[in-house]
Amino acid sequence: MKEKEIIEFIRKSVITRSKNIIAGIGDDTAVVKYTKNDYLLLTIDSIVENVHFKLNQATYYQIGKKAIAVNLSDIAAMGGIPLYILISIGLPEGEKETIGNLLNGFKYMAKRYKFEIIGGNLTKSNILFIDVCAVGKVEKKYLKLRNGAKEGDLIYVTGNLGASQIKKHLNIKPRIEESRFLVKNFPISAMIDISDGLSSDLITLSKESNVGFNIFLEKIPLSNEVKKISKTKEEEILHALNDGEDYELLFTIPEKYKNNIPEKINKTKITLIGEITKDREYKGIYKNREINITASGFDHFPILTS
Amino acid sequence: MKEKEIIEFIRKSVITRSKNIIAGIGDDTAVVKYTKNDYLLLTIDSIVENVHFKLNQATYYQIGKKAIAVNLSDIAAMGGIPLYILISIGLPEGEKETIGNLLNGFKYMAKRYKFEIIGGNLTKSNILFIDVCAVGKVEKKYLKLRNGAKEGDLIYVTGNLGASQIKKHLNIKPRIEESRFLVKNFPISAMIDISDGLSSDLITLSKESNVGFNIFLEKIPLSNEVKKISKTKEEEILHALNDGEDYELLFTIPEKYKNNIPEKINKTKITLIGEITKDREYKGIYKNREINITASGFDHFPILTS
Repeated sequence: MKEKEIIEFIRKSVITRSKNIIAGIGDDTAVVKYTKNDYLLLTIDSIVENVHFKLNQATYYQIGKKAIAVNLSDIAAMGGIPLYILISIGLPEGEKETIGNLLNGFKYMAKRYKFEIIGGNLTKSNILFIDVCAVGKVEKKYLKLRNGAKEGDLIYVTGNLGASQIKKHLNIKPRIEESRFLVKNFPISAMIDISDGLSSDLITLSKESNVGFNIFLEKIPLSNEVKKISKTKEEEILHALNDGEDYELLFTIPEKYKNNIPEKINKTKITLIGEITKDREYKGIYKNREINITASGFDHFPILTS
Repeated sequence: MKEKEIIEFIRKSVITRSKNIIAGIGDDTAVVKYTKNDYLLLTIDSIVENVHFKLNQATYYQIGKKAIAVNLSDIAAMGGIPLYILISIGLPEGEKETIGNLLNGFKYMAKRYKFEIIGGNLTKSNILFIDVCAVGKVEKKYLKLRNGAKEGDLIYVTGNLGASQIKKHLNIKPRIEESRFLVKNFPISAMIDISDGLSSDLITLSKESNVGFNIFLEKIPLSNEVKKISKTKEEEILHALNDGEDYELLFTIPEKYKNNIPEKINKTKITLIGEITKDREYKGIYKNREINITASGFDHFPILTS
C-alpha cells in the first residue's frame, strides 16, 4: 500500500466523530472545541533517521529545529498559533552533547515561535526518531480548512518552491506570522501547507473542496536551488511541482481581493500561481498549452519536455 | 547518561513555565488551563520494536493496545479521563493486514475507554514504533499530582505487581475507572502509575513530595507470574519491587481514611503496602528487619537473601 492509501484506510477504519470534533484526520491538524471564541488545534508528526534526515548531513541542532517546524507549519495552515509542544525522542545513544544540541534546536524554535515545551518522553531505539505533538489555537472566525475553495478563487503560495531537500528542509520557517496576517485581513477560502509537493497538496486541497484548478506554470516562484540544479525551465517547474518539503502555505481567496493581496508579508513573497475551476480537472498552462497535472506529476509530465 | 539523568537534563534545559501551565515535565502528564472547572491533560509516550515488544512475541493487535494503554495509564494517574488520541506510526512495511490488526488494537481501546482518535501520522521507518499523544481532562478539584504525600499517609497499590513482561504488558488495563472512583471518594494526597517499577516510582513520588516511606514488603500483592518464576519469597518481592511495566496505580491517603478504603474497586484489588515517613529515607520492613530500598533495588538488596 502507498502512504496515501494507508492514511485513507486508517481514516475509514479508526476515526470517530463527536460533536466536540470540528475536523479530524484529513486536514493539517485536528480541530476540537476549546473556549467560547477559540478552537484547539492538535497535530502529531515524526521525523525519522534515514527517511527525513541523515546524520552525516545534518546537525542535531538542525534536526531538533526540523522536528518542531514541520508541526508548526500544520498549525500555520489552519490559521492558528502554537501554544504547547510535547516531544518524544527515540535515541540510539545518550551522549550529553548530542542531546544538548537537539534541545538547543527545540529551544530556538520555542523562543522564536512563542510556544512552551510541556512534556516529553525518551526511549531507547536503534534509530533516531523524534515525534512532536503540537497544540495550538485559532479563533473560530479565523479557522481555515482545506475544503473551502470555490470556482473562480485565486491560488497563491508563500515563498519559493522546489529542491528543498538540498538545504531548506533543515531550516524550515513555519509561516505562522504570514498565516496570521492573511486570516486577519482576508477571507481566505482554503489553506494547506506544502509538504508533499505543490502538485500533490494542491490536488488534495481541490479534492477536499470538490473543485479543479488551472496553474500558471511559468508563474510558480522558484528557489535558488532549483535554478542551480535545473538545465531547462521545464525542469525547474517539475522540481517546484513535485519535490516536496517546501513547508510554504498554499491558499485560495475570492478573485475580488486580487488587488489587495500584498506582494510580501514581512519579507516573505506572496505569489499568484493559478485559479480554481469548477470541474474537477487539474490543469497547468505552459506556453499557452494546457497540461494535465497529477499528484505524481513527475511521471506524467512528458509534454513539458517535448 | 542514564534515562533519568537525561530527562532531568531535558527538564532543566528546555522546560518553560507560564501561568497557563499547572504542571509540566516531571509528572505523569502535563496539566494546562482548559475550562472554568477542568484542566487539560497532555502526555506523549512511545513503544519501540525490540525495546518494548518483539514482533515474534506479540501480535499487532496487542502492540496497538499497548501503545494506547501506557498513555491512558498516565491520565489515570492524574485522576482524569481520556478525551482524544493522536497516533504516529513508523512502519517498516505497509501490508494491509498488518496495519488492520494494529488499528483493531487502537479501536478496541477507543471503545473500551471512550476516547476519540482524532489525528495520525504515518512514516516509513526501519523499525516499528508507535508514538501516542493522549489528551484528557480532569476536574480541578480532582487533579492528583506526585508531590502531595504527607508524613503518616498510607500507601496503596491497585492490582498485583511483578513479572509483567511475561504476559501482562501486552494486556495492560489502564486504571481509569479505579482512579475516578478514588478521586471522587477520597482525598488522595499523591498518585503515580507504576511504569518503571514499584521501588523506582515510589521513590519518585517521595522525592517530589519531599518525604520518605516504609514499605511492608510481605504485603506487596504479587502476580501469579511472579509466584511461578520465583523460588523464594525474597525473589518474589524483588520482582514486585523492580520489574516495571505493571501500569498499576500507586497512591497515598491520610491515615484516617484507612477503614473506608474498599478491598476492591470493580474487580481490582486495592492493597495497603506501607506508610509515608517524614525523613527522606526509603525503607522496607521484611521479617521485622529494616531494609534500604533504592530505585535500582535489585543491585542493592543483598540483605534479603542473606
